[in-house]
Amino acid sequence: MTQYHHLSLEDIESLAVGAWILGTGGGGSPYLGLLNMRQLYAHGKRIRLMPPEALNDGDLVAVVSNQGAPLVGQERLTDSRNVARAVALMEEITGNHFRAIMSLEIGGGNSIQPLMAAAHLDRPVVDADCMGRAYPEAQMTSFAVGDLQPYPLTSVDPRGVESIVYKVPTWKWMERVSRKICTEYGSVAATCKAPRSGAEIKRWAIPYTTTKAIRIGTTVRAAQRRHDDPIAAILEIEPGKMLFRGKVIDVERRTTEGFLRGRTRFEGLDAWRGTRMEISFQNEWVVAWLDGEPLVTSPDLICVLDSISGEAIGTETIRYGQRVTVIALPPPEVFLSPRGLEHVGPQAFGYDIPYTSVFQA
Amino acid sequence: MTQYHHLSLEDIESLAVGAWILGTGGGGSPYLGLLNMRQLYAHGKRIRLMPPEALNDGDLVAVVSNQGAPLVGQERLTDSRNVARAVALMEEITGNHFRAIMSLEIGGGNSIQPLMAAAHLDRPVVDADCMGRAYPEAQMTSFAVGDLQPYPLTSVDPRGVESIVYKVPTWKWMERVSRKICTEYGSVAATCKAPRSGAEIKRWAIPYTTTKAIRIGTTVRAAQRRHDDPIAAILEIEPGKMLFRGKVIDVERRTTEGFLRGRTRFEGLDAWRGTRMEISFQNEWVVAWLDGEPLVTSPDLICVLDSISGEAIGTETIRYGQRVTVIALPPPEVFLSPRGLEHVGPQAFGYDIPYTSVFQA
Repeated sequence: MTQYHHLSLEDIESLAVGAWILGTGGGGSPYLGLLNMRQLYAHGKRIRLMPPEALNDGDLVAVVSNQGAPLVGQERLTDSRNVARAVALMEEITGNHFRAIMSLEIGGGNSIQPLMAAAHLDRPVVDADCMGRAYPEAQMTSFAVGDLQPYPLTSVDPRGVESIVYKVPTWKWMERVSRKICTEYGSVAATCKAPRSGAEIKRWAIPYTTTKAIRIGTTVRAAQRRHDDPIAAILEIEPGKMLFRGKVIDVERRTTEGFLRGRTRFEGLDAWRGTRMEISFQNEWVVAWLDGEPLVTSPDLICVLDSISGEAIGTETIRYGQRVTVIALPPPEVFLSPRGLEHVGPQAFGYDIPYTSVFQA
Repeated sequence: MTQYHHLSLEDIESLAVGAWILGTGGGGSPYLGLLNMRQLYAHGKRIRLMPPEALNDGDLVAVVSNQGAPLVGQERLTDSRNVARAVALMEEITGNHFRAIMSLEIGGGNSIQPLMAAAHLDRPVVDADCMGRAYPEAQMTSFAVGDLQPYPLTSVDPRGVESIVYKVPTWKWMERVSRKICTEYGSVAATCKAPRSGAEIKRWAIPYTTTKAIRIGTTVRAAQRRHDDPIAAILEIEPGKMLFRGKVIDVERRTTEGFLRGRTRFEGLDAWRGTRMEISFQNEWVVAWLDGEPLVTSPDLICVLDSISGEAIGTETIRYGQRVTVIALPPPEVFLSPRGLEHVGPQAFGYDIPYTSVFQA
């Protein structure tokens, strides 16, 4: 008998907070997904979480995400039926039945997407993802590092547009074609990625990231209730590193080619008074410079948090005057191999900077 | 027993010449498709043509075309297997078997595409299309005028990229999404459009356009052999109209958004000495002005022909100094209704000009 962990609505409230922190600025705000889940729970739906090792090797798992530019998610509200349709469409064209549903990326709103699909389709959610955070592109996953088959992908729009990237020679081609489709939809699409077998999940997925996000969110919310410092509380339960505290003095942001790209600049406060941090982003925070010197880069998780509430600030919502604290969290092992760094190191984002982890220094 | 007309290679040589004239500048040069057919015939393949009325109502027909900017077809050579794969992929995802294959547009190289697919898949070709010429966009067909279902569409690239536009709310959305996929492939894709039933073909297709193109091509080639005027020969067998003779003095051309767009200007010769013609194009010739006044617009077929050989000149190959003769051929009836003109009249291309046929004047 599979051991399911039944999620309470409190768990999902915490998931929204924790996943937003793991989103490293991207993955889209979980708030609108959370509103959907509150409504689905009010209508009696319940979500059960299963550990990856409970999958049989031959089980098939739907890997889902909302693809696109996070800023657009602020205008085009989340409808839980879209992602369910992306999964149902994948079953329709492959003729397979999915045993369970999993998140592509635990970061941001994409942590909630599998729950919405699961509520409509009555399937369990696998406690895992393939990024351990959020990343902007299709080939930035542990599955791509593992060289698993990149296709097919289904891409759904609420106006009734449904497309399939049926076959591609490389992960990069999957990114290119699916991104153009998503851009034409208006830079947001509900997607079901290439189906994964239980064996593939057990070998290549990043396990227990759903419960990790819930744990971080629970910690932050408990500290908020006690009027403790939530950021200190995170650093007590996670092997993170405090990097900077300051206020936002500038944001450049543009929605382009299906991404949200830009830069933001912070002026130091407290121990960092007199210094400046600059962070560039492509949906997610990618590289942070301290006084012009690279300080931290992907795949390290760069988390920009509200200094008081400890909650995450996204690349689409950061604005002038906010008080922010920047911490780093360690990346999943799979991205630290030479092949992993090819997919998600600073050079994969176009920066001619070597990766040196703040956790190795 | 279905009456098939077996095409000789001579028929196909004539088809290439006649279809290029009906292409009204677009549909891509048939020459590379013709080279493929010569090779396929050398390997023993043979094509059989069937009249649309020989279809049973429930038969399914694959409607094929090469989508994209004609200029790109000059660089990325035609491979007959691509279009066959687009058809096979459609059978794969729908689970249906096609009785026959048909051209989306009889104009240009797209007259040869169904023959290439038919050779590989051993099916007959239906003697019909749904444009009676060439048009640049998905909604510019008799099927769209008939409000038939616009989806699904398969889109194939020789590098092994295969995409499907599975469902769309409107023909315009089919155009938008499929165009972006095609653009990402490099502005050319082999496509199989929405499958059509025999009943739909008999009601909405434009019949006998393959034999019409062969007839025009045969006439031109015969006149060339006799050193007669091939253009006069066309106007003897088709109810066309002589519009202009001159030489090319200017071409502006750009490949953009998956189309070839631009303008060309001619200086008059013979009876037209002292006048000027300007023609704008989007893959195909759309509007021609004589001395600044609109003279002829889509859906009338504007055919720019080499004044000596009588063969068509494409929007991708027209160049300074060529001696050209412009004739008009009458459009299929289906495009003359108010709904037809909404799809292919000058306003559908963005020109604020009413349609007045040169055949009504």
